Amino acid sequence: MTLQTDADGRLRHLLTLERLPRDALVALLDRAQAFADGVDARDALAGTAVCTLFFEPSTRTRLSFQRAAQRLGADVLSFDAATSSTTKGETARDTLKNIEAMGVRGFIVRHSADGAVAALAEEAAAGTALVNAGDGRSAHPTQGLLDMLTLRQALGDDFSRRRFAIVGDVKHSRVARSDLHALRTLGAGEIRVCGPASLLPDDGTLAGCHVTVDLDAALDGVDVVMMLRLQRERMEEGLVSSLEDYHRDYGLTEARLRRAAKRAVVLHPGPMNRGVEITDAVADGPQSLILRQVANGVAVRMAVLEALLR
Amino acid sequence: MTLQTDADGRLRHLLTLERLPRDALVALLDRAQAFADGVDARDALAGTAVCTLFFEPSTRTRLSFQRAAQRLGADVLSFDAATSSTTKGETARDTLKNIEAMGVRGFIVRHSADGAVAALAEEAAAGTALVNAGDGRSAHPTQGLLDMLTLRQALGDDFSRRRFAIVGDVKHSRVARSDLHALRTLGAGEIRVCGPASLLPDDGTLAGCHVTVDLDAALDGVDVVMMLRLQRERMEEGLVSSLEDYHRDYGLTEARLRRAAKRAVVLHPGPMNRGVEITDAVADGPQSLILRQVANGVAVRMAVLEALLR
Amino acid sequence: MTLQTDADGRLRHLLTLERLPRDALVALLDRAQAFADGVDARDALAGTAVCTLFFEPSTRTRLSFQRAAQRLGADVLSFDAATSSTTKGETARDTLKNIEAMGVRGFIVRHSADGAVAALAEEAAAGTALVNAGDGRSAHPTQGLLDMLTLRQALGDDFSRRRFAIVGDVKHSRVARSDLHALRTLGAGEIRVCGPASLLPDDGTLAGCHVTVDLDAALDGVDVVMMLRLQRERMEEGLVSSLEDYHRDYGLTEARLRRAAKRAVVLHPGPMNRGVEITDAVADGPQSLILRQVANGVAVRMAVLEALLR
Repeated sequence: MTLQTDADGRLRHLLTLERLPRDALVALLDRAQAFADGVDARDALAGTAVCTLFFEPSTRTRLSFQRAAQRLGADVLSFDAATSSTTKGETARDTLKNIEAMGVRGFIVRHSADGAVAALAEEAAAGTALVNAGDGRSAHPTQGLLDMLTLRQALGDDFSRRRFAIVGDVKHSRVARSDLHALRTLGAGEIRVCGPASLLPDDGTLAGCHVTVDLDAALDGVDVVMMLRLQRERMEEGLVSSLEDYHRDYGLTEARLRRAAKRAVVLHPGPMNRGVEITDAVADGPQSLILRQVANGVAVRMAVLEALLR
Repeated sequence: MTLQTDADGRLRHLLTLERLPRDALVALLDRAQAFADGVDARDALAGTAVCTLFFEPSTRTRLSFQRAAQRLGADVLSFDAATSSTTKGETARDTLKNIEAMGVRGFIVRHSADGAVAALAEEAAAGTALVNAGDGRSAHPTQGLLDMLTLRQALGDDFSRRRFAIVGDVKHSRVARSDLHALRTLGAGEIRVCGPASLLPDDGTLAGCHVTVDLDAALDGVDVVMMLRLQRERMEEGLVSSLEDYHRDYGLTEARLRRAAKRAVVLHPGPMNRGVEITDAVADGPQSLILRQVANGVAVRMAVLEALLR
Repeated sequence: MTLQTDADGRLRHLLTLERLPRDALVALLDRAQAFADGVDARDALAGTAVCTLFFEPSTRTRLSFQRAAQRLGADVLSFDAATSSTTKGETARDTLKNIEAMGVRGFIVRHSADGAVAALAEEAAAGTALVNAGDGRSAHPTQGLLDMLTLRQALGDDFSRRRFAIVGDVKHSRVARSDLHALRTLGAGEIRVCGPASLLPDDGTLAGCHVTVDLDAALDGVDVVMMLRLQRERMEEGLVSSLEDYHRDYGLTEARLRRAAKRAVVLHPGPMNRGVEITDAVADGPQSLILRQVANGVAVRMAVLEALLR
C-alpha cells in the first residue's frame, strides 16, 4: 500500500510512474489502446464530477483531460487557480477540500512545486482520486503513459532490443522523469540521455542511462528520439547561452535524424519551439509521431480516469 | 406579489431572504435536504440553459452553482463579466437581455453593488429567473439557506431555544444579513452579534439582536457560532488596526470556543483567513461544520434552481 | 470545389458568404428557422466535440456558439487564445492541429487578422470543419446569416423590392461585408451604404451600392436600417473627430428613423454604443429587431454546425 495504491494494489491516485507495477502500467496502456480504437464509454462516468485544478496554467493539458472526461460522460468543472484572483489567499488544501465537499470525485491537478500534488492527495477523502497533471520537475505520469502508448503502437510491445534517446533539458523536465520510469518498467533495451551539461540532472535520475553531451553520438542508431521542450527561462538563468547555440548543438534537424535508425520515430511533448529544439521538417515529417501523441493523450487520460473513478 | 414572487406566491427570482415567507423557505430546505441525501434529478432541467453572470469574481460560488446545475441536467454557460474585456462598455442590462435572447432561462448573478441583481431582475422577461449569488453587502440568499440547512441538520428543526452568535465584520457582510433574515424567519431563540464597533452596522440591520463588542460575552453558552470573513480592505480603510489585533480580539480559538455550549457548532462561509478570524484547530476541529456547509451549498442551489426553472 | 465546399458542393467549412451559392444560403436559413421555431435536436451531434478557438475575444459570440452546440448535444471545449498565456509561442496552426488530434471535429475560430481563419482551414484534416466567427475586417458569416434570417422573418422571402441602408464604420466592418454578400445573393432591391468618408472602403466592397455620406439621404424611404458599431479606436486613429460629432452626423435617433419607411426595421450586431451610433429610444423601440437578431444567432449557428458536422 502506497499513497497511490490501496491495500489490494488498486490505483487510488495517479501521482507518478515511479514504482508503478508493470502490470498496472500495461493494463492502463491496454485500456487506452481500446479507447484510441474508438471504444464507446459515454456512460462510464455519468453523474460523476471531475475538476481540473491547475495551479500552473496549461490549456492544452486541461483540454485533453476535459475531452477524456467528456468521452466518459463525466461532468467537468474547472478551477484555474493560476489566474484566479478569487481564492483570496486560500490554501491549496482548502481549495481541494471545498471542491471535494461539492461532490467532486476526481481532481486533475497541476502545480509548479515538486510533490505538491502528492501532498494534496494526502489530504483527499477516501473516495477522492487525484491525477497528477504535472508537478514541478518531478512527474507528469499521463505524459509518460501516452508516450509509451505511442511507442508501443510504433514498435510493438517488446522494448528490450530498442534504443531510446531523450534529448534536451532533462534536468528540469517532469516529462523526462516520467518517461524514464516507464521505459525502465517496460524493459527498454538502452536509454541514452543527451543535453548540455548545465541541463543534465546529477541526482540519480539518470541511473542506468548512457549520458552524453554529444547529440550525434546520442542519436547514432537509435529507434526513438524523444525531444524535450526548451523553456526560455533557461537563458535568463544563464544555463543556455542563446537559442541559436542551443539549436546548433541540440536541435533535431533532418540531417541529424539520419544518424538514427532508418525508421526511427520522433516524439515531442509540445508545445514545440520550432526552430529551436526541432525543425519544421522533422516536426511535420514522416518520422514524427507528435500528433499521434496528442491523440493518445485523450485515450490514456480516459483509461486513467476510468480506472480511478469507476 | 413582489419582484421575487408572482401573484400566486410562487418564487420567480431568489433575490433576498428578507420577507421570504417561512413556508417558502422551509420548502426549499426540505427539497435541499432530499438532494443532500442523494436524490437523483438528472433530467429535471434537461434542455434548460442557465448562465453564471458574475460582475464580481467568485470561483467557488460559481463552481457550486455549476455543480448544482449539472446535477439537474441543465446546460451551463458562464459569463465572467469581472475579467472579460469583451463587453466593450455594454451595460449589465444589455448583457442580460442578450444572453436571455439566446434562450437562457436561469441567471446566477453576482455583483458588487447593492441592489444590482434586483435591478436586473426588473428587466428580465417573464420566463427568466435570476438567483442572487451575492450583491454588495445586501444579500447572499443561497448562503443563508445553506447555513440554515446545515444548522437544521445539527440542531433539528426547532431553533426557538437556541442561541446564535454572528461574529466579525457584520457591517460589510451580505452573508450576515441573509443569515439574520433566515434566523428570524425560522424563529431563532436568541441572536447575538459581535464585532469591533467599526464593523457593526448602525442601520437597523441588527434590530432584535444582542449586540456586543466583547467576544467572550457573545460566545457564552451559545449553540452556534457563525464566523465571518475579514476582508483585508478593512485595514486599508482604517477600520481594523492589524490582523494581529483582530485575531486577539475576535479570532475564534479553541480556548474561546469552550465558552460556548458543549456541543456548539461553528460555521464560516469561506474562504477562511486561517489564523485571523479562525484558528486551524477550530476550522478543522470536531465542532466545525464548514465543509458540511459547502456540501449543503450544492443541495440548496439545486433546490433553488429547480424551484425557479422547473 | 473551393476551400469551403467539396466536389459535391457540400459545405466543408463556413468561412465567408462571398460566392456561397444561393441554394446553400437559403437551406441554412430554412433549417435555422426550424431551430428558431424550437425543433429539438439534442441528439444531432451527441458524442461530437466542438471547440471555440478565439484568438480575439468575444464573450457573446462564444456564448451563442456554445449554446448552439449544446442544443445539438455536442461536447463543447473552449480555448481562449486571446488571454491564454499558455500557448507559449505556439503557432495558431499548431494549436489547431493539436486540438484536432484530441478528436475535436468542429472549430469556431475568431481572429483579428484578415484571412486567418481560411488559412487555418487549409491546414485542417479531412473530417474537420471550421466556422469563421469573425476574421479581421473580412467576414463574419454567421452574423450575416442571422441578419438575413431576421430580415426574412420581418420582410418575407422576397428582398427584390426592398431598400436597405447600412450605416456606420463600413470600412472596418466584417459584419457589413458579410451582410453585403448575403443581400446581393438574396437579390436585395437597393443597397445604400452611409458613413463618414473616412470610414467608407474604397476597395470594391461597395460595388453596386448607393454610397453617401448623408444619413438623411440614406434613410429616406428604406425598409431596413442596419447600424454598425463604432469602435472607439477610430478616434485614436483620427478617423472620427469625437463621439458627439459622430452621433450628430451618424447616430440613429427616432427623428431620423422617421425618414425611413413607416414600418422600417432596425438591426445592430451589438454590442451597442448607446448614445453614439444609436439612441436608447431606437434600440429599445418597436422597430428594433436587435434582440431578435441575438435569438436568431443561436438558430443560425445550430444550422451551420449541423450542416458541417452531421
